[in-house]
Amino acid sequence: MVKVGILGAAGYTGFELLSIFERHSEVEVTFATSGTYAGQRYSDVYPCPYDITLIAPKEAPLGDVDVAFLCTPHGASARLAQQALAAGARCVDLSADFRLRDLATYQEWYAAHPVPELIPQAVYGLTEIYRDQIAGADLIANPGCYPTGPLLALHPLLKAGAVQGERIIIDAKSGVSGAGAKPTTTTHFCSVHDNFSAYKPGHTHRHAPEIEQELTAYAGQPWRVVFTPHLLPVSRGILSTIYVSLDPAWEQAQVLDAWHNAYDAEPFVHVLPEGQLATLAHSVNTNRCVLSLAPAGAPGEWIIVTSLDNLVKGAAGAAAQNMNVMFGLDETLGLVS
Amino acid sequence: MVKVGILGAAGYTGFELLSIFERHSEVEVTFATSGTYAGQRYSDVYPCPYDITLIAPKEAPLGDVDVAFLCTPHGASARLAQQALAAGARCVDLSADFRLRDLATYQEWYAAHPVPELIPQAVYGLTEIYRDQIAGADLIANPGCYPTGPLLALHPLLKAGAVQGERIIIDAKSGVSGAGAKPTTTTHFCSVHDNFSAYKPGHTHRHAPEIEQELTAYAGQPWRVVFTPHLLPVSRGILSTIYVSLDPAWEQAQVLDAWHNAYDAEPFVHVLPEGQLATLAHSVNTNRCVLSLAPAGAPGEWIIVTSLDNLVKGAAGAAAQNMNVMFGLDETLGLVS
Amino acid sequence: MVKVGILGAAGYTGFELLSIFERHSEVEVTFATSGTYAGQRYSDVYPCPYDITLIAPKEAPLGDVDVAFLCTPHGASARLAQQALAAGARCVDLSADFRLRDLATYQEWYAAHPVPELIPQAVYGLTEIYRDQIAGADLIANPGCYPTGPLLALHPLLKAGAVQGERIIIDAKSGVSGAGAKPTTTTHFCSVHDNFSAYKPGHTHRHAPEIEQELTAYAGQPWRVVFTPHLLPVSRGILSTIYVSLDPAWEQAQVLDAWHNAYDAEPFVHVLPEGQLATLAHSVNTNRCVLSLAPAGAPGEWIIVTSLDNLVKGAAGAAAQNMNVMFGLDETLGLVS
Amino acid sequence: MVKVGILGAAGYTGFELLSIFERHSEVEVTFATSGTYAGQRYSDVYPCPYDITLIAPKEAPLGDVDVAFLCTPHGASARLAQQALAAGARCVDLSADFRLRDLATYQEWYAAHPVPELIPQAVYGLTEIYRDQIAGADLIANPGCYPTGPLLALHPLLKAGAVQGERIIIDAKSGVSGAGAKPTTTTHFCSVHDNFSAYKPGHTHRHAPEIEQELTAYAGQPWRVVFTPHLLPVSRGILSTIYVSLDPAWEQAQVLDAWHNAYDAEPFVHVLPEGQLATLAHSVNTNRCVLSLAPAGAPGEWIIVTSLDNLVKGAAGAAAQNMNVMFGLDETLGLVS
Repeated sequence: MVKVGILGAAGYTGFELLSIFERHSEVEVTFATSGTYAGQRYSDVYPCPYDITLIAPKEAPLGDVDVAFLCTPHGASARLAQQALAAGARCVDLSADFRLRDLATYQEWYAAHPVPELIPQAVYGLTEIYRDQIAGADLIANPGCYPTGPLLALHPLLKAGAVQGERIIIDAKSGVSGAGAKPTTTTHFCSVHDNFSAYKPGHTHRHAPEIEQELTAYAGQPWRVVFTPHLLPVSRGILSTIYVSLDPAWEQAQVLDAWHNAYDAEPFVHVLPEGQLATLAHSVNTNRCVLSLAPAGAPGEWIIVTSLDNLVKGAAGAAAQNMNVMFGLDETLGLVS
Repeated sequence: MVKVGILGAAGYTGFELLSIFERHSEVEVTFATSGTYAGQRYSDVYPCPYDITLIAPKEAPLGDVDVAFLCTPHGASARLAQQALAAGARCVDLSADFRLRDLATYQEWYAAHPVPELIPQAVYGLTEIYRDQIAGADLIANPGCYPTGPLLALHPLLKAGAVQGERIIIDAKSGVSGAGAKPTTTTHFCSVHDNFSAYKPGHTHRHAPEIEQELTAYAGQPWRVVFTPHLLPVSRGILSTIYVSLDPAWEQAQVLDAWHNAYDAEPFVHVLPEGQLATLAHSVNTNRCVLSLAPAGAPGEWIIVTSLDNLVKGAAGAAAQNMNVMFGLDETLGLVS
Repeated sequence: MVKVGILGAAGYTGFELLSIFERHSEVEVTFATSGTYAGQRYSDVYPCPYDITLIAPKEAPLGDVDVAFLCTPHGASARLAQQALAAGARCVDLSADFRLRDLATYQEWYAAHPVPELIPQAVYGLTEIYRDQIAGADLIANPGCYPTGPLLALHPLLKAGAVQGERIIIDAKSGVSGAGAKPTTTTHFCSVHDNFSAYKPGHTHRHAPEIEQELTAYAGQPWRVVFTPHLLPVSRGILSTIYVSLDPAWEQAQVLDAWHNAYDAEPFVHVLPEGQLATLAHSVNTNRCVLSLAPAGAPGEWIIVTSLDNLVKGAAGAAAQNMNVMFGLDETLGLVS
Repeated sequence: MVKVGILGAAGYTGFELLSIFERHSEVEVTFATSGTYAGQRYSDVYPCPYDITLIAPKEAPLGDVDVAFLCTPHGASARLAQQALAAGARCVDLSADFRLRDLATYQEWYAAHPVPELIPQAVYGLTEIYRDQIAGADLIANPGCYPTGPLLALHPLLKAGAVQGERIIIDAKSGVSGAGAKPTTTTHFCSVHDNFSAYKPGHTHRHAPEIEQELTAYAGQPWRVVFTPHLLPVSRGILSTIYVSLDPAWEQAQVLDAWHNAYDAEPFVHVLPEGQLATLAHSVNTNRCVLSLAPAGAPGEWIIVTSLDNLVKGAAGAAAQNMNVMFGLDETLGLVS
């Protein structure tokens, strides 16, 4: 049994992690922390039967677990990662603290980094791309919810040199849980229901530099994104509509082949056949990332549509998948494929 | 032109009032206050084109308006009513401060009343029942959102002596706007969407004594309610399913006749024919209250279903309707019938 | 491995069964039929990765399976049950054909029964009440989605003689999947979204006699229900608000004790503590039935609130649970408890 | 009073037209037809109080009305337009039959045109652009729901020569009412709720050539669009996210100025200030089209976000606005601005 601790367990990703571990035959949850709800049972916080009692963060027995999951805000997470590693626990950080390998970029988009010396040892936790490094890593930077779909779709195409130009347009749409459990005017039911809106358009959302870092790494040359997230009136799921130019010699079958070659052995990446487009329903409540393709109406112009559940493959599911890899377990344990 | 002021204009009922007055040919909005958003234009607070600038409550020129609408919390409203009346403005109070005619009952369910001496002059603003008193009143206690449907349905039946027993069960379901614009865990999109829940069941919601006060007044004898409100994953609307015993001699046609006699001349009360049941869609975004009836399966047992929009006929629409009556205007101005 | 066949697999309960069996370690799906989609892969019908090819009903190899699940309409199900039993397969019928033990009642509420001689050997598949008979049965009548919550809540109280009167009011609210996958004006998105409505009120819905049959059996005396189903703008879940009179000597703790005694050993029945009420979120996407209680405001008057997922504990989950019992498997296999 | 007839009145645009005319002081609805519901009152078809009785299409007294609104399918509409014009009624056609001025394009995207000789006399009913021709026209081709937002946003910029390149990407998201009232698997509540999907991507939706026709006309040179519509889990509203390249010399203020110059005198086009983006909530249930702008992160690259209600400014509201122009009425009568 892998002993796990969850820090910041009362948020949505914490709830999702707990739900995954309830179904996971090789995990034992040693502790779960919450600053707000310490002392309460989990079943008093969420409508569920989990009876674990939340403890205060400072009482977390970091030395008693094999791995700590950090569902804490950026900034706080980095310090907790440092403490957990010092106590001998491996770390999966679901915040943004170790996603950007370039310190200056982190500080431009976030804030001063509390523990910059840890950045070099963090592995970007996109399992399908970095599985080998993840297996041996002590510190995983779990990807942001928006990047995973576009990155999995574009990696094989960039590697094959098929993508042209220097800019990709990602029109993304996310469910509200991506905004977190904190009540705000933005997440009030009456603000979201029957509504739909864009936010942080163009190049202002923090996941833009994260996507660009990875695209650039895969391609070996700089890539830029125009990235417009939108807020959907659903609780879960991200659908990304990606406008991309490919080498005009590539036909639809070649793109699908590239994806099949890359992912047919992957349990959680599903490639749809020609004529089908990914929908939220393909992925919600599962750890799937679904890829699909359509012609855009002119030679070399394509539309890629990807779908995943932001709380699962976009957060807690990916974190559990990484843990499975880190501890040599069946990668699908606890997860719906 | 009637000059109006809106106190507490940045809540949902304030927004609804402003929207009604935008369409109202005989109203001029002189001021609108907000403690939180003072100095901002209304179009910066809500997605709308209303360019009025919100002012701080203490700067409200109460003496410049013919009528003040109080969209403020109970307790605060009573004091503002006192100030507005002193400044020469008539008042429509959308809070609960003057709904309960019995001071002790108010203090049991709410708190100490700040201005008890005003209670006797307030008129309960259920227009269809108290129209004559409303016309001449300076202080209107606008009804709670839940009571209006059951009261309009039961008034003609109680007056006719048709209702039997001493207790009525009201199973009510409301949209989220009834909980107000303040963000809380309860009103977070992810708490409400795909969910449905009962709250304050039995005899614990503050609208229970309000309903009982009115039923008792109509019947001339004490009536008790079992009242269970529920939270629907919609923004607007209240549907009440009411379980009632009638004199077994009454048939369906008689009940419908009693309603038609009472309401056929009313612009905002609609009686559905036998075989149709009220739905939210019958009333949402209008000032309608819709009444319908079905047999419950045994002699004398009936199910009444009523529907209205909690922000319109259940709040701002009723308030505007009362204002129309108070100032001798066409009762339907600004309202959808 | 238990070999199963699913007849009528392209409806919502068929999809749910397939999803359960995907996660079930001891089940092999031998065939799945659909009149409409025969020849297509399941992944062409629903947004999912299940690659089983649907076959025409008449090609179903009934003799090759250990158990057949009938997700077919009433009338058709009875005949298929007969064929399946003749071919040596045990049967779980998710239609209404064998729920009513009294033939006349069936014919009053449904139609002429195609195979009345099978009725006596069917066991009503409410696992928690009839587990012993289910274990040895060849033909299970899976309960209707609405009855399960009220029946599980009332069984221990009726057995204890605590329920008074002769009539119970059940105000029930269901998600749209309960109406089936067939597109109709009633199930059109724009008819349901932002709406809420009652239907078949009082004593006109076919689940009323089913509930009455069971209550009467548990109590040993006739019970009547007033039953008003409503349509919620959600896909899944049933919440029932039940108004019941109990022996005034019973206090809240006694009712909760009765439930705990009956269900603490049950994996799928959860009793909430005093002060908490069941919500849809407690049960959706799980096989849980959640029970809760509140006082109604007068001695002996109580409100019971129950919640379950109509497609899981209200249909496919209960069917799988029954199958687990019938084949001596761990009762929780494939199910979320 | 303008006498109007509505053909195909039982669809969603017919319902919206009737609702508009209920509030319109200068319109009298002479007849409303429905093949399916002929003989029924409107209040039996939709949850509303409109008591007009629907008549069969062939009984429509076309000669008794000043204007006929065609809410009928393409193909059928063209023939009805011919009959109505012959009977002396002017026509507003809400179908696609007269939107495309090029017959070959119509036949490529739709079918053989039943009355091609009428095409030249039809005026494209985008009021803000073609108001003068609309005033004198007998046959109006009401625009498709998707084109209106992008066309109003781009017209002033194309006229000013500010738009660069030859291709514009329009990522559009629509509520379900755009798919019509006919029940299908696609419009089933459970297919749409909690889901989000793209359909007819790239250059396969019939509104693509309609948009291109207009852009090309405004610019005086060919324009191409990549157009990806998506289905939102809401009943009403279209939000379009438009990726466009402008002359790098243009700054944000210039674009906003161009819009203000074009539209400040227009009652139904609203330009949002810098920093605000259009949302569905800005326009739903009104006849507004809302325009907004954000930089895309590189010189000359911009994101335009437009919003409107597909049933109002995208269909029935625009049709009523056109009628107001045709008959010399106040353009805002019956409409929310």
